[in-house]
Amino acid sequence: MSAFLDNLRAIVGTANVLDGPADMAPFLRDWRGRYTGRALAVLRPGTVEEVAALVRACVAAGVPVVPQGGNTGLVLGSVPDGQGNAVVLSLARLNRVRAIDPVNRTMTVDAGCILQNVQAAAAAAGCLFPLSLASEGTCTIGGNLSSNAGGTGVLRYGNARELCLGLEVVTAAGDLWSGLTGLRKDNTGYDLRDLFIGAEGTLGIITGAVLKLYPAPKASITALAALRSPAQALQLLSLVQDRAGSSLTGFELMSAYCLALVARHFPALPRPFAATHPQYVLLELSSSESEAHAVGLLESAVGAALEGGIIDDAVVATSEAQSRGLWQVREHISMAQAAEGKNIKHDISLPVSRIADYIASTEPRLQEAFPGCRLVCFGHLGDGNLHFNVAPPSGIDNEAFLVNQEKVNRVVHDAVAAFGGSISAEHGIGALKREELARYKSPVELALMRAIKRALDPHNLMNPGKIL
Amino acid sequence: MSAFLDNLRAIVGTANVLDGPADMAPFLRDWRGRYTGRALAVLRPGTVEEVAALVRACVAAGVPVVPQGGNTGLVLGSVPDGQGNAVVLSLARLNRVRAIDPVNRTMTVDAGCILQNVQAAAAAAGCLFPLSLASEGTCTIGGNLSSNAGGTGVLRYGNARELCLGLEVVTAAGDLWSGLTGLRKDNTGYDLRDLFIGAEGTLGIITGAVLKLYPAPKASITALAALRSPAQALQLLSLVQDRAGSSLTGFELMSAYCLALVARHFPALPRPFAATHPQYVLLELSSSESEAHAVGLLESAVGAALEGGIIDDAVVATSEAQSRGLWQVREHISMAQAAEGKNIKHDISLPVSRIADYIASTEPRLQEAFPGCRLVCFGHLGDGNLHFNVAPPSGIDNEAFLVNQEKVNRVVHDAVAAFGGSISAEHGIGALKREELARYKSPVELALMRAIKRALDPHNLMNPGKIL
Repeated sequence: MSAFLDNLRAIVGTANVLDGPADMAPFLRDWRGRYTGRALAVLRPGTVEEVAALVRACVAAGVPVVPQGGNTGLVLGSVPDGQGNAVVLSLARLNRVRAIDPVNRTMTVDAGCILQNVQAAAAAAGCLFPLSLASEGTCTIGGNLSSNAGGTGVLRYGNARELCLGLEVVTAAGDLWSGLTGLRKDNTGYDLRDLFIGAEGTLGIITGAVLKLYPAPKASITALAALRSPAQALQLLSLVQDRAGSSLTGFELMSAYCLALVARHFPALPRPFAATHPQYVLLELSSSESEAHAVGLLESAVGAALEGGIIDDAVVATSEAQSRGLWQVREHISMAQAAEGKNIKHDISLPVSRIADYIASTEPRLQEAFPGCRLVCFGHLGDGNLHFNVAPPSGIDNEAFLVNQEKVNRVVHDAVAAFGGSISAEHGIGALKREELARYKSPVELALMRAIKRALDPHNLMNPGKIL
Repeated sequence: MSAFLDNLRAIVGTANVLDGPADMAPFLRDWRGRYTGRALAVLRPGTVEEVAALVRACVAAGVPVVPQGGNTGLVLGSVPDGQGNAVVLSLARLNRVRAIDPVNRTMTVDAGCILQNVQAAAAAAGCLFPLSLASEGTCTIGGNLSSNAGGTGVLRYGNARELCLGLEVVTAAGDLWSGLTGLRKDNTGYDLRDLFIGAEGTLGIITGAVLKLYPAPKASITALAALRSPAQALQLLSLVQDRAGSSLTGFELMSAYCLALVARHFPALPRPFAATHPQYVLLELSSSESEAHAVGLLESAVGAALEGGIIDDAVVATSEAQSRGLWQVREHISMAQAAEGKNIKHDISLPVSRIADYIASTEPRLQEAFPGCRLVCFGHLGDGNLHFNVAPPSGIDNEAFLVNQEKVNRVVHDAVAAFGGSISAEHGIGALKREELARYKSPVELALMRAIKRALDPHNLMNPGKIL
């Protein structure tokens, strides 16, 4: 093993092979702090060629490789297991923006670029890179692509997959596939790009990407609507989509309990309504024309919804500054939740049309199984994506309630399967949801996935134990 | 072999196993009439289960299967080769719209639905299915997905791939994969959907799909702009994208020679300009608000382009009826070309920013090799997709000029490769471009594609000889 590590040092230099426990610790611990794995070493290549050479050395030695970006994943996809026989390959030093082409509206980046830096580089070129998530100050674009990250912009711009035109990948054999095309149309064979995207590093290592850029909207304006039920939220969604089309860039559902948590833990934040309402929707319209155009379109849509009895009350921002204030309520839900104590989290998606029925049918089942439990239900309603989190009844300790995780999962995920939904909308599978995946996927689909894994990673050395 | 055909008759009934030469003829001849293959029989299953049973019977007998939709492909992807040992499996009888969900904005269809019927069913539900191509009255959605069809709507809505949320596929083993989810977010394992999309039937047979629908725009308004060069067309594109964002739904480049061909062969069509200009752009804006909004936005963008000296003249439609008239010029180019006689066709794409340089550098090379040859250059400039067709010099017979196909391909495709483009933007590879693919793809990419083919179709029975 010492000869193996010497080989790696010869490739990337001694300083970039970490094997001391303190040096390795941040690479072995998962983002939520629930798990710490073990590894032979952490490798920090500085070039794509070094990534390829490291993979070849690992294949020759039969050593598993765990690729890692910002290590902000929520499903134990980027940390090694406890065996200690793998290396972690960090892409963090591959962090250059290689090129920006404002006419083609593309940007070529190293996989290790931090998402916020990608956004900033796009903005500096007068463009928008619309992927946006809570961890954007730490996560990397390579990790975003490997996990097909979602976030708040999906309704208008799609997931990470839809924002990528080309990839550069080091295969499981240590070959370099240069697929960095910036083409909108290219029908020359199998879609390798989309196979590596979302594969969580189990088929190869993404080292670079060509990203899609968009014209930056002139303004984005937000409203907060108060409603009686998720069913009304769906009516509102249809109404706004018909009137505003692709100008609708955000549509977030939040229950009264979510806003109550925010109010309790962040009392300084504005409270937009005097009364309490059962549900709220934060909606955002963006205009390529002007702030006035966005405000006018939003006011007219909200007016029609009030008139039609779809919503009970609303606050419409009249400037981008006011809009940012309204977003704060939505953005503080996760932190308010954390301040309240741990709960049992789910990242589910459903056909948009079935969300109201899903909530109406699943909440009573949870109440029956866990009387008094409290649902922290919010999410990207426009995409059918709910964060459907279950907190203990009042007076029950949060940590103690976690023993119910498996039983709660069964209620929530069985209902997801019955409604034609997904048990992982945007977080992926990793090691955490591997058993859930095996439970809910059909044998035919699992067999197809395993055949692909065997074909592209015959020695099962790329992030083993993740997904499959 | 007669026992084999009896097996097939037992599955789908005698009437749905065609083996007479006259019955089989339309299924064996390609759309452009350049090639006729041979087959044991043409199979016409009426259910998905029959498709699976037929595939299992073919696998047991070692008989290749050529899936076929509307048979409108342009690259010999849906007809069998000349060996006569394969069956053609027509999806034409699987032609039901299974379900429409206007709130989820999805539609579940059989693979054999004709594209125009899919569009009409969406429209009847108050929605838009934006895929649109010349052959839409004949082609099927299964074929569109298998070839990842493009067309004029790609700029705003993407290729067929981007319009599909879920698939149902009969695998090469004759198993049924039911992946008919209508989810916008689903990160549960490898992206099988996008692997079957664009695989031209070489990995399995698409039998059904969940398609994305969009709110129908209130109006689409068109302008025709006259310019000096493709470089100015790119400036116009950037200007309109910055002002109109996703309201820009069409951006088509046409050279003076294209419009001259239309004027010669369709003299009854309107001629929008008195003078001749080197290039023209047809641009379309769509509004979710109103016709007046679309007209205003387009007039203001065209006005800015005139003022900035980017365009020399323009006609802006003031109604949808006028807009349809302007589209006719663009739509008649292919027919005018056909009336003029055969030419050497290319379906290429490039990074949008490189198109002007590509044309400027490639046209002189063609002139050098084939003095006096005439370029019929038009296409979806907004997507970087050009139909870059080479017609003989004046006085040279069109048929006789076709002997130069290989040499012309080399000039055009070598330049495509040098500019980072694709030799097949929207038509696919089929049997026609298989050798071109092998010439221009990297060995690493070809090896990955072959590994996937072997993994999913180990007996090489699914549309053999296509793509790889």
